[in-house]
Amino acid sequence: MITVNIIGSGNVSQHLISVFQKTESIVLQQVFSRKKENINHLVSDDKITTLYSDIKPADITIISVTDDAIAEVSEQLPFENQLVVHTSGSAGLDTLSAKNRRGVFYPLQTFSKTKSVDFKVVPICLETENDPDFAILENLAKAISDKVFKINSGQRQSLHVAAVFSCNFVNHLYQLGKEICDENQVPFEILMPLILETADKIKMLSPLEAQTGPAKRNDQKTIEKHLSFLEDENKKTIYELLTQSIQKYNG
Amino acid sequence: MITVNIIGSGNVSQHLISVFQKTESIVLQQVFSRKKENINHLVSDDKITTLYSDIKPADITIISVTDDAIAEVSEQLPFENQLVVHTSGSAGLDTLSAKNRRGVFYPLQTFSKTKSVDFKVVPICLETENDPDFAILENLAKAISDKVFKINSGQRQSLHVAAVFSCNFVNHLYQLGKEICDENQVPFEILMPLILETADKIKMLSPLEAQTGPAKRNDQKTIEKHLSFLEDENKKTIYELLTQSIQKYNG
Repeated sequence: MITVNIIGSGNVSQHLISVFQKTESIVLQQVFSRKKENINHLVSDDKITTLYSDIKPADITIISVTDDAIAEVSEQLPFENQLVVHTSGSAGLDTLSAKNRRGVFYPLQTFSKTKSVDFKVVPICLETENDPDFAILENLAKAISDKVFKINSGQRQSLHVAAVFSCNFVNHLYQLGKEICDENQVPFEILMPLILETADKIKMLSPLEAQTGPAKRNDQKTIEKHLSFLEDENKKTIYELLTQSIQKYNG
Repeated sequence: MITVNIIGSGNVSQHLISVFQKTESIVLQQVFSRKKENINHLVSDDKITTLYSDIKPADITIISVTDDAIAEVSEQLPFENQLVVHTSGSAGLDTLSAKNRRGVFYPLQTFSKTKSVDFKVVPICLETENDPDFAILENLAKAISDKVFKINSGQRQSLHVAAVFSCNFVNHLYQLGKEICDENQVPFEILMPLILETADKIKMLSPLEAQTGPAKRNDQKTIEKHLSFLEDENKKTIYELLTQSIQKYNG
């Protein structure tokens, strides 16, 4: 059995509270929240505390708060030399107070409060300051997910940048595509099957192999047609830059 | 019963040959191919012709060849005043010879020869020169797909540009994300669940509502961290431009 404390009551905390309580090999010992009402629908009252001084040591204490608050919260913990981890994608291991044994437990998925998550397929990226702690953290991660990775702070930083390109920027391109449709009275939903297929395809092919379109084909006639079609300067600049970038890789 | 001819033997033709032969209300009358061997595994020999002069009129003749060849092929057809359509996303209706009644039958999906396609969910965009022909073309489209749209040439052009943004450029961002992972010895597959969720999310939310990440949050500290992390000038420029574009929409 692994005993776990959770500090914080945001999205990630709430999903962790749910999955830990559903998992036989895990005992959710205590949850710290400044606002009891955020989580008292998820966990019994006797496990919730609003005072740092009440928190007892556990095998693993998970701090899941905003990046800026990690340092201070970890300093407030009333014990030393315990395994304490944060759940952030971009904060370093050393953001945590050095009075405890430090680690990172980073589940890489977008969490929203209203949508349930199948943790089995959520990648969890782990890092520990001390080697022996890795096995402890890995036990916890493997109890809830089939996709557990050992990722150091530098790798986690690169993963975060890669996610900005492959997810945040991608969503913005959906937005630009939708605008073009809206402006021309074309339902954006016509593109949905193609959008889903584009994401699905790279499970089988590398993105380089999967690339299609006028830039890849070097179809200058179509590229010029599209550029003269686009009136908005912002979209034109993005079209040109990404076309050039594709051509660099396929030239 | 609707009788159909297909001119051409590329990816789209081959998928149409398969689905038409599986559909009760459709009779595949003839297939024209300069290379018989491209399609004789799909359709019986007596239906294949390599001579334009052999092609008999049908309810609908579908020309599925490269954009540059549409004009000439449509000129070669040995009949007049029949319904003749092309399958291109970017060629205008007037690319077809005016000697026949013109139309467009544009299935919006990436087709590869090796992967089977569920036509029921493939959006098909239709356009006809003459109103009475629309019903004929719509009958054919609805026999194979549940997603049939009336889209004129201008709208189809905008759809094509939108697809470049939301699919071709998106795939390139996957590629850049993968490079960042590769350079830092992080498996790109860690990002797959997030990539699939990003595509899936916009079925329920508009891309503007679904936007997340440092640019959306105006998290300047993280943006600067990421820019100094990126060494490649091309990636840096793309990061800056897309960050600014997101901030324009959320500012």
